[in-house]
Amino acid sequence: MISSLVYDAGDVDEFRVESETDLREARDAPGTTWVRVADPTDAELERIIDAFGVHPLAVEDIQNDVRPKTEEYPAHTFVLVKTAMLRRGETTFDEEVRTRPVGLFLGPEWLVTITDEEGPVSAVSRVWRSVENRDGRTLQYGPDFAAYRVVDRIVDDYFDLLDDVEDTIEDVEDGVLEEPDEDVLEALNAVRRDLLSFRKVVWPTREAIAVLSRGDAVHVREQTERYYRDVYDHLVEVVDLTETYRDLARGARDIYLNALSQSTNEVMKRLTVVATIFIPLTFVVGVYGMNFANSPYNMPELEWAFGYPAVMVGMAFVSFILLAYFRREGWM
Amino acid sequence: MISSLVYDAGDVDEFRVESETDLREARDAPGTTWVRVADPTDAELERIIDAFGVHPLAVEDIQNDVRPKTEEYPAHTFVLVKTAMLRRGETTFDEEVRTRPVGLFLGPEWLVTITDEEGPVSAVSRVWRSVENRDGRTLQYGPDFAAYRVVDRIVDDYFDLLDDVEDTIEDVEDGVLEEPDEDVLEALNAVRRDLLSFRKVVWPTREAIAVLSRGDAVHVREQTERYYRDVYDHLVEVVDLTETYRDLARGARDIYLNALSQSTNEVMKRLTVVATIFIPLTFVVGVYGMNFANSPYNMPELEWAFGYPAVMVGMAFVSFILLAYFRREGWM
Amino acid sequence: MISSLVYDAGDVDEFRVESETDLREARDAPGTTWVRVADPTDAELERIIDAFGVHPLAVEDIQNDVRPKTEEYPAHTFVLVKTAMLRRGETTFDEEVRTRPVGLFLGPEWLVTITDEEGPVSAVSRVWRSVENRDGRTLQYGPDFAAYRVVDRIVDDYFDLLDDVEDTIEDVEDGVLEEPDEDVLEALNAVRRDLLSFRKVVWPTREAIAVLSRGDAVHVREQTERYYRDVYDHLVEVVDLTETYRDLARGARDIYLNALSQSTNEVMKRLTVVATIFIPLTFVVGVYGMNFANSPYNMPELEWAFGYPAVMVGMAFVSFILLAYFRREGWM
Amino acid sequence: MISSLVYDAGDVDEFRVESETDLREARDAPGTTWVRVADPTDAELERIIDAFGVHPLAVEDIQNDVRPKTEEYPAHTFVLVKTAMLRRGETTFDEEVRTRPVGLFLGPEWLVTITDEEGPVSAVSRVWRSVENRDGRTLQYGPDFAAYRVVDRIVDDYFDLLDDVEDTIEDVEDGVLEEPDEDVLEALNAVRRDLLSFRKVVWPTREAIAVLSRGDAVHVREQTERYYRDVYDHLVEVVDLTETYRDLARGARDIYLNALSQSTNEVMKRLTVVATIFIPLTFVVGVYGMNFANSPYNMPELEWAFGYPAVMVGMAFVSFILLAYFRREGWM
Amino acid sequence: MISSLVYDAGDVDEFRVESETDLREARDAPGTTWVRVADPTDAELERIIDAFGVHPLAVEDIQNDVRPKTEEYPAHTFVLVKTAMLRRGETTFDEEVRTRPVGLFLGPEWLVTITDEEGPVSAVSRVWRSVENRDGRTLQYGPDFAAYRVVDRIVDDYFDLLDDVEDTIEDVEDGVLEEPDEDVLEALNAVRRDLLSFRKVVWPTREAIAVLSRGDAVHVREQTERYYRDVYDHLVEVVDLTETYRDLARGARDIYLNALSQSTNEVMKRLTVVATIFIPLTFVVGVYGMNFANSPYNMPELEWAFGYPAVMVGMAFVSFILLAYFRREGWM
Ligand SMILES: [Mg+2]
Ligand SMILES: [Mg+2]
Ligand SMILES: [Mg+2]
Ligand SMILES: [Mg+2]
Ligand SMILES: [Mg+2]
Ligand SMILES: [Mg+2]
Ligand SMILES: [Mg+2]
Ligand SMILES: [Mg+2]
Ligand SMILES: [Mg+2]
Ligand SMILES: [Mg+2]
Ligand SMILES: [Mg+2]
Ligand SMILES: [Mg+2]
Ligand SMILES: [Mg+2]
Ligand SMILES: [Mg+2]
Ligand SMILES: [Mg+2]
Ligand SMILES: [Mg+2]
Ligand SMILES: [Mg+2]
Ligand SMILES: [Mg+2]
Ligand SMILES: [Mg+2]
Ligand SMILES: [Mg+2]
Ligand SMILES: [Mg+2]
Ligand SMILES: [Mg+2]
Ligand SMILES: [Mg+2]
Ligand SMILES: [Mg+2]
Ligand SMILES: [Mg+2]
Ligand SMILES: [Mg+2]
Ligand SMILES: [Mg+2]
Ligand SMILES: [Mg+2]
Ligand SMILES: [Mg+2]
Ligand SMILES: [Mg+2]
Ligand SMILES: [Mg+2]
Repeated sequence: MISSLVYDAGDVDEFRVESETDLREARDAPGTTWVRVADPTDAELERIIDAFGVHPLAVEDIQNDVRPKTEEYPAHTFVLVKTAMLRRGETTFDEEVRTRPVGLFLGPEWLVTITDEEGPVSAVSRVWRSVENRDGRTLQYGPDFAAYRVVDRIVDDYFDLLDDVEDTIEDVEDGVLEEPDEDVLEALNAVRRDLLSFRKVVWPTREAIAVLSRGDAVHVREQTERYYRDVYDHLVEVVDLTETYRDLARGARDIYLNALSQSTNEVMKRLTVVATIFIPLTFVVGVYGMNFANSPYNMPELEWAFGYPAVMVGMAFVSFILLAYFRREGWM
Repeated sequence: MISSLVYDAGDVDEFRVESETDLREARDAPGTTWVRVADPTDAELERIIDAFGVHPLAVEDIQNDVRPKTEEYPAHTFVLVKTAMLRRGETTFDEEVRTRPVGLFLGPEWLVTITDEEGPVSAVSRVWRSVENRDGRTLQYGPDFAAYRVVDRIVDDYFDLLDDVEDTIEDVEDGVLEEPDEDVLEALNAVRRDLLSFRKVVWPTREAIAVLSRGDAVHVREQTERYYRDVYDHLVEVVDLTETYRDLARGARDIYLNALSQSTNEVMKRLTVVATIFIPLTFVVGVYGMNFANSPYNMPELEWAFGYPAVMVGMAFVSFILLAYFRREGWM
Repeated sequence: MISSLVYDAGDVDEFRVESETDLREARDAPGTTWVRVADPTDAELERIIDAFGVHPLAVEDIQNDVRPKTEEYPAHTFVLVKTAMLRRGETTFDEEVRTRPVGLFLGPEWLVTITDEEGPVSAVSRVWRSVENRDGRTLQYGPDFAAYRVVDRIVDDYFDLLDDVEDTIEDVEDGVLEEPDEDVLEALNAVRRDLLSFRKVVWPTREAIAVLSRGDAVHVREQTERYYRDVYDHLVEVVDLTETYRDLARGARDIYLNALSQSTNEVMKRLTVVATIFIPLTFVVGVYGMNFANSPYNMPELEWAFGYPAVMVGMAFVSFILLAYFRREGWM
Repeated sequence: MISSLVYDAGDVDEFRVESETDLREARDAPGTTWVRVADPTDAELERIIDAFGVHPLAVEDIQNDVRPKTEEYPAHTFVLVKTAMLRRGETTFDEEVRTRPVGLFLGPEWLVTITDEEGPVSAVSRVWRSVENRDGRTLQYGPDFAAYRVVDRIVDDYFDLLDDVEDTIEDVEDGVLEEPDEDVLEALNAVRRDLLSFRKVVWPTREAIAVLSRGDAVHVREQTERYYRDVYDHLVEVVDLTETYRDLARGARDIYLNALSQSTNEVMKRLTVVATIFIPLTFVVGVYGMNFANSPYNMPELEWAFGYPAVMVGMAFVSFILLAYFRREGWM
Repeated sequence: MISSLVYDAGDVDEFRVESETDLREARDAPGTTWVRVADPTDAELERIIDAFGVHPLAVEDIQNDVRPKTEEYPAHTFVLVKTAMLRRGETTFDEEVRTRPVGLFLGPEWLVTITDEEGPVSAVSRVWRSVENRDGRTLQYGPDFAAYRVVDRIVDDYFDLLDDVEDTIEDVEDGVLEEPDEDVLEALNAVRRDLLSFRKVVWPTREAIAVLSRGDAVHVREQTERYYRDVYDHLVEVVDLTETYRDLARGARDIYLNALSQSTNEVMKRLTVVATIFIPLTFVVGVYGMNFANSPYNMPELEWAFGYPAVMVGMAFVSFILLAYFRREGWM
């Protein structure tokens, strides 16, 4: 589907763009022309390529979902960015961070945005709607500013994704000390995988936006560069956070593994306490279960009047001493 | 709240700054003008933006608490730095190192400092007071030197934060060998998180100050650059210490985990000692508890005159041998 | 074996290349000349070196299977790339990723490809066949485009290799939680080794192609550079994935080692449950097996009418309490 | 304390330097002037600052013991280096590597060295004495060569420190396999901390000397640069060794932790051997201790003529089998 | 010992070099002069220094066995490389990789090689002999090519050293799964140490040769640079392999440690199986060993006709169930 808006500080017009001629007319209309292409047919793509001189390699890049980048073409500046969304569950590694490519083609007085999959990409739609609603600042500036608005939206959504990741890590950290559980390690591994996938998106995006912010892109005006620098600052922060959360996840894993070692240690201690108390006592009662007989030297204590109570008291005393010792050692 | 001082080597005057006109007058008064903005209303910000040509994007950066940086604007050099303070306890990761942004706008003969939250920022207030008290060196030099004084104060406070961190690590290291305890790992994890957060502050600050110290900033005089280089040296040391403490924390964690393994090993040894001594003895007394009878080959030792004492002495002897062996092996 | 094709946008001719004169004729024929050398004899190599001025050091590099690279020689640009294939099993480290060198010599109007081992290299053969079949785009452009087609094929196959690696990692991750098994660690170690070997191939290839994509190579036309940039983008992704999979493999190993610790912990718990319940009971029955007699204080309970049932009920009760306790603690 | 020597290839004179005038005279005397300042009073520092135009910020740097560095000032080149010495024991992290700052101010025909703490710094004193003793090479060259001699001495002492560290690591490695002991981990942690502290000294020193060796310093003659390059080479080696020893310390820690795991494994095996042999036997003798009676089916073996010997032989046989099995498995 | 050859494409002459005059004559003889100095006396070194203008600092570097490097001196290019050989056994860290320095001084028409220890260095001798035997390529080119031949030989030997290391790692990997043994960790630690030492040799050598291959060295002709580039390629591969083997050694250590954990786990399982089966049975037989009597409620089963067989069958049944359970769980 292709839609088109032509606007300047004063006015916004929607254009019919059913043929290549329509597209050329829209492109040449005075004011900024924004052509939005969503989930296009091959014929529609053909028309865009012809009307705007868009390079087929760039269109292929959008379709193949390659790494974000900025490339200067003779007819336009091409910017490829990606929206990102977490999708946990029965997924393979590739699918955990769901990304959608957004291609931006910046010409002298026009902007073409191409999204290649079904359904609208909300970052594009929201900026489109704000232009339709005559949002002041966007109307005043050219197509490079509209492109900035789209990129800015996408990057803002990255922070929400990272907030989710942070929440997971904090939940895990809190939970792990209560009850070490193997779900915990799985959760942390999922977080680690998410961050690995997300990192593959944000590192190249940072570079792509850096190009736009430092005067290297032909179709970005000097006064807009400062805005791209602002997005760049956000991306630096996103990259920082990604690395920081990887570190936090590693810390949480250490706590978990330690809790497990601690648990094994506790189990061993209890076993040792029980065994250390009862095994010697069992030996003692075994002694008095022996069947020696027929000699005054053979277990005379069995015949003593207070033999049994004495043995019982003796064993109770030993148990008490051992328990006191274990308590002092902090084993109980 | 907006306050204003105008000073030169000889004199310090406080200016009324209730309107934009006041601000312009203060700005143009001969001598260095320092306008301090603390926790401003929107109207006050507006006035500052208009009177000094401060860029709104820079003001937004202070409000959004973004990464420290130095940016050259047409009307001024903008420096964003942050005070840092530890806040342990029931906090999320974000809140553990409490930072407060301090924005510094350096013009030709003026300095505007903006702090955005309630309450005074002590680094700014202390320098302000020293100007009020006619501190020699600051009066003699221009606004870039006053800015240096503020930044220097903030960076000095970083060393106090790092001293706290070092103390925690040393406490943990000392404590861990006495009694491995799971509080220890939590404390170390807190330290690790603090250092991660703090690092996010100091790395970009170092870059921001580097810009001021090497002649790239329009409004920093050559003779002041040496002072910024001094702050830069301190920041390099702060970054170094941050990395070093991360390494120390890792070392302390290793000691802790080892102490735990050692403890499990000790527990196992005790259990093994008890079991190795008593399980065989219990077997022996079990033998003499069997009820074989009616044949001279069936346990004749039960009828021997010294059967019982012999068995007891034999068992004592075996125990003694085993204990001696365990002692020699270092198990007891 | 030496084969030769001469082509331009309109036509494709196969040339006889049995002597050096044939080779010179093919080289000088109008249109693009592609000479394919596969598993050559020394005499054939000699002829190629003489006819095209190919440098012997470059030919040696192909034979010695050195690192991929691009080198500018007076007579040609030399590109060395490698096909890669996994070969698991009873292999040494060197043989796990089976690589085959492909040498490409780019002259003004000619391309020489040399592969040094027995059997065809499929990436070269497939492009060769597409030229024979008059594939439009390749015919239209010069030898640098044909070389691009070969390199692109080789790099595409890298993704298949990485897919295999990813599948192995995911299988391992899924399997490990069901039953930790030492095959798992061996599989992960194999993956780690494969990635180490593969990395040694792709890192230098990325650099070699970068040279071709940024105008440094004499015999790569400007319009073809964009295509090499496209391959370069793919190689950046291959390198990224390689690092990411190394990270994933590390994560899977952590899960495995943890599952093992968890298992040891479980085993200890079961042992402790059994021992904690039965060792005290065994003590109790041992008490009533003692042979004290001849005094009203010596084990009078043995004579009580309900002594035996009382002891049995008492022991059942204690067992029940202990079981309830262990269940509450999550040990069973 | 301030001392002064003026020398050239032919002669060495000691100068009185009790006033600023003395200092100026010494400075302007023909030949190379070396003024040595040790543990100075504030008045003495003042005199030095005035007589040689030394910058107060540089003097502050010596007093504050900041990172080693080389800085070009209008009147002189300032070099700050540090002597380093190990001080193990009841020390905090900061104090483990004891450093002492040595400031070197290089003017056109003069050298000022400042050490700020009590007691002589041996590297400075030794070179001073060699000048007093008319050491040929030093007299012949200018102040930059004398400064080189001091720095070279300091760096040579770094190798001694590293030799100590290496010896500790080798002792630990040798000792750990005999008896894993928790002192070992403490020793290794101390080494790790020492190396962390030492690294903070040597990395910046390397950079500081690099500046002197590559023609960037005004007061270093071209023919002396080669000597600074030689010191630089040594510093590169010092840095290399520091990193290598960190790696070795990590290796030694791994061996230690493994020895501990091995020990736990051994302990478990012994326990298992004892328990596996005696627990079943104890069951068997328990069987024959049961009191079944009054029926030909109730334990008739108790009445057999060779019942007891048969049981004893049977148990011995089982024990023997088990022992053989354990020995074959390598458990004993 | 000093030997000298003078050669050109046609001829090779051995020169007497007993005095400085001889050396000067050899140097100035038409053709390439190669003076080989092995294990020289001080007088011989003096003569070399005087006759060829060799710098004493460079000679010192050879004697002190410093890091490999290339340095440009007024009279010559100085290259310091090292042969490397493994020497396992009762050695300190320093001695494990035995290195021998080889100094190469490249003048306009002459080459001086200095080796400082007793015994010939085989890389130098082999090239020397090939010149004596009139090896074509070396005679044709100048002294820079002879130097290349020496360096190439030395680097080729690095690959043999690495092959040894690889074999050790593969042996360890194969062995570890059969029987985890603490010799394994020692072997791996030795490998790690070897690689650390070797790395200290090859990293700086790579840089030293890079200088020769990129036109920075005065006395390396352009046509020879390509040969140094070839050596450089080999050194890059050596460095790569060194890092890869460090990684492999880490992997082998992980397998080893895991095998140990696995073993502990197995031991625990066996103990638990034995204990879980026999401890309850021992309790049961203990019950029937109690001496309750004189009441129909006191252990009437002892008097039942089939009491004993029933108990034995019951216990056999329970054992069977438990064994089946353990087998199903994979514990046996
Ligand atoms: Mg592409
Ligand atoms: Mg792809
Ligand atoms: Mg998943
Ligand atoms: Mg934003
Ligand atoms: Mg949140
Ligand atoms: Mg901003
Ligand atoms: Mg934030
Ligand atoms: Mg907290
Ligand atoms: Mg939060
Ligand atoms: Mg300060
Ligand atoms: Mg402190
Ligand atoms: Mg300073
Ligand atoms: Mg080669
Ligand atoms: Mg190879
Ligand atoms: Mg294999
Ligand atoms: Mg491709
Ligand atoms: Mg897949
Ligand atoms: Mg300090
Ligand atoms: Mg200490
Ligand atoms: Mg301290
Ligand atoms: Mg030295
Ligand atoms: Mg040494
Ligand atoms: Mg030593
Ligand atoms: Mg040297
Ligand atoms: Mg050495
Ligand atoms: Mg050794
Ligand atoms: Mg050794
Ligand atoms: Mg070679
Ligand atoms: Mg090999
Ligand atoms: Mg091999
Ligand atoms: Mg364990």
